[in-house]
Amino acid sequence: MKKIAIVLSGCGFKDGAEITESVSTLIALSQKAVDYKMYAPDMELKTTNHLNGEREAPRNVLAESARIARGQIENIEKLFAKDFDAVVFPGGFGAAVNLCNWAEKGHKCDVHPEVERVIKEFYQASNPIGAICIAPALVARVLGCHGVTVTIGNEKDTAREINLTGAIHEECAVDDYITDRGHKLITTPAYMYDAKPAEVFKGISGLINELVEMA
Amino acid sequence: MKKIAIVLSGCGFKDGAEITESVSTLIALSQKAVDYKMYAPDMELKTTNHLNGEREAPRNVLAESARIARGQIENIEKLFAKDFDAVVFPGGFGAAVNLCNWAEKGHKCDVHPEVERVIKEFYQASNPIGAICIAPALVARVLGCHGVTVTIGNEKDTAREINLTGAIHEECAVDDYITDRGHKLITTPAYMYDAKPAEVFKGISGLINELVEMA
Repeated sequence: MKKIAIVLSGCGFKDGAEITESVSTLIALSQKAVDYKMYAPDMELKTTNHLNGEREAPRNVLAESARIARGQIENIEKLFAKDFDAVVFPGGFGAAVNLCNWAEKGHKCDVHPEVERVIKEFYQASNPIGAICIAPALVARVLGCHGVTVTIGNEKDTAREINLTGAIHEECAVDDYITDRGHKLITTPAYMYDAKPAEVFKGISGLINELVEMA
Repeated sequence: MKKIAIVLSGCGFKDGAEITESVSTLIALSQKAVDYKMYAPDMELKTTNHLNGEREAPRNVLAESARIARGQIENIEKLFAKDFDAVVFPGGFGAAVNLCNWAEKGHKCDVHPEVERVIKEFYQASNPIGAICIAPALVARVLGCHGVTVTIGNEKDTAREINLTGAIHEECAVDDYITDRGHKLITTPAYMYDAKPAEVFKGISGLINELVEMA
């Protein structure tokens, strides 16, 4: 049975992993009858109230991700490419503020060292990588030097910033996905659009089908 | 276009709405091309860390529910049966500690006054009610006097407690649902079982199909 790792970045689109994208990933993986396991960094989360947008007391990325994972989650320090056939990064603002600081620094952003290690390990092992929503920007920051192709939909500023990493941005519809076969990288835009849950689920299901097949 | 209301109880199965159940509800509704809107009570949430089970600083049920709802959520005080064709209650421990105190008092539990009003309003208007996981116990507490039939799966103690409300408990598989046509009430067990996301999604999709058809 193929084994897939999922890297979460909190719980909630304004400061963590986008919830519908994360659950869509879990449902799609579970429908394929593969084995999967979740990971997140053990680090401070700058909390945003999702009702009024105000800053709140800090939380912890790993503990908040555990809400989506129903407690079944481990520190990303324990995630190694040798134990898995592929890895998926759901989106949400957490991918751009916790896993790296793309939201602040764009193509020159710093990447969380363990996240960078994981992306490089999977790439070097030729184990496929899936990335959703804004997470393709994170992957582009790490693998752009190899000329990977990714999508974040059709948002021009972010696409331009991605091209500055060396990666190639391709436009993509919300319920579709882009496959870079040479680099074993699959990306889908999801909530980079003002999307409906069914559209997000369709795009992510397509990505997961392709990822599991390629793994 | 039919309009469906969803009542959330936080964000995370140990102290709020079960996340996979809530998102499965949104995906299934969105696949049916109906209009939907989310609501939650504006009240204190006794927070449980989902990694280590420890008690944390209180949060707010409405603000945490907004994480699932991407900010598009209103106080349950604004939810009226006249504006909707049906209502759905996802599960999670939040349904048994925030929407009512079933976890503490079982069939004699107190129900949040606005939640009780909403359930009675929809019932009296003959607008169908859907309830997932442990939420059928909440509905049984309010409508048990009418002899409604519900399921929470096959957990004997909870089923016995539900029968004490006057409701009738029927066993049900994780990926199936029970329809009480006379009382327009549809229930599915979801994470009352040690379930997989795909099973939960299948059971909830069945419930939503039936609910939308009946509405």
